[in-house]
Amino acid sequence: MSQQNIYDNEVFFEGYRNIRKNRGNANILIEKPALFSLLPDLRNKTILDLGCGYGENCGEFIALGAKKVTGIDISEKMLEVAQIENSDRKIEYRNISMENIHQLQDTFDVVISSLAIHYVRDFATLAKNAYNLLRNSGVFIFSQENPLNTCFTAGNRWTTNADGNAVYANISNYSVDGERKSKWYIDDVQKYHRTFSSIINALINAGFIIERLLEPVPTEEVMKSYPEYKKDIHKPDFLLVRAKK
Amino acid sequence: MSQQNIYDNEVFFEGYRNIRKNRGNANILIEKPALFSLLPDLRNKTILDLGCGYGENCGEFIALGAKKVTGIDISEKMLEVAQIENSDRKIEYRNISMENIHQLQDTFDVVISSLAIHYVRDFATLAKNAYNLLRNSGVFIFSQENPLNTCFTAGNRWTTNADGNAVYANISNYSVDGERKSKWYIDDVQKYHRTFSSIINALINAGFIIERLLEPVPTEEVMKSYPEYKKDIHKPDFLLVRAKK
Repeated sequence: MSQQNIYDNEVFFEGYRNIRKNRGNANILIEKPALFSLLPDLRNKTILDLGCGYGENCGEFIALGAKKVTGIDISEKMLEVAQIENSDRKIEYRNISMENIHQLQDTFDVVISSLAIHYVRDFATLAKNAYNLLRNSGVFIFSQENPLNTCFTAGNRWTTNADGNAVYANISNYSVDGERKSKWYIDDVQKYHRTFSSIINALINAGFIIERLLEPVPTEEVMKSYPEYKKDIHKPDFLLVRAKK
Repeated sequence: MSQQNIYDNEVFFEGYRNIRKNRGNANILIEKPALFSLLPDLRNKTILDLGCGYGENCGEFIALGAKKVTGIDISEKMLEVAQIENSDRKIEYRNISMENIHQLQDTFDVVISSLAIHYVRDFATLAKNAYNLLRNSGVFIFSQENPLNTCFTAGNRWTTNADGNAVYANISNYSVDGERKSKWYIDDVQKYHRTFSSIINALINAGFIIERLLEPVPTEEVMKSYPEYKKDIHKPDFLLVRAKK
């Protein structure tokens, strides 16, 4: 299937819901501060949130002064939660996949996406569609799994050297863009690996100017409280990009 | 030392000279075609080659129609070879380190560097200096070791999984920019690791617009003739960037 909707799978939905409730998860500790650090002043801006999920970010964009937020997601179940937990008269949730955003009639000041881009098979087309939906000087800001995390095709993510430090990362087939299967609550979660250069070149080809890349690692404070994130020093979990029309 | 000059070390010089004579080396097979694919039309252009070494590329830029090439290198021994092997009235070789290019009085249409940038401690300053030396719409084109190759601090570059395929790459301390020591003919060759995002952000901060990234891998033909390069599918040797003023 070209448009995967794992979030409407009951097993996945419950597993994911539990991890997102845990305040010590990598999204909250690492990805979210990095994503929000890339935001422009949102006051009076219109925002499109690709793969908005529960709408948590949509609510925060409104709190930061956004005029209107459109949150789209392929999963009706996610949007049902969003309507309950993050409802606002300035937020519109729509059951549209990231592959179909060209159907939207509006234009936006900011197109944003948190950890959903790696589910999209055709990033070149998504980048072009995002470009077309932006007003001039608008920005496309997204986080995704770091290419060092999306690449591997088999085996374990990490192996250890003689003294037990996890320094060997499995980056097998890093250079080969394409579909990857992984297990995350359910078997065969489909993701798409793209190298750093593929991602950046697709944005440039769409017309974007690259403004900032981030590969955030946990702060000292976070590593103290959550030692399991120390290994991110060897392989960051996320890549974030800000690109301007 | 902040400006390393390993190329004037006798042992290093001879080892390096031998590898560069081997027509099956990764520079010739992988890096050079990628570097030249990024070149604009060089006819009537002025070029600055950072870390020009033997001047092989300088000679080729002239063959491609360049008006004048300035080749700089920290190593007098390398420039002596350049003067013998790649001399041309349109090429000027100068014994200047990459750290001192701000001393140059000329401006250029193209600043280029093949596999030397990873020896420079302060890339942010180099990027600013390159920017200042370029005419408007000039381009900075460089190759360097891929960040997946410059990062590791200890142990082996590769380890293998149960079936003997080298899929585990040692990318220890990928997220930590800074000095690395490695052995390459001599002990303690100093290189500087920078993440993908550090490299790109330094260029953007200097004023550049990123135009293209490449992480070339060997062609099928090259892999057939040189099976040792098959592992590049897991971890590319090089990163190339074209950035525009």
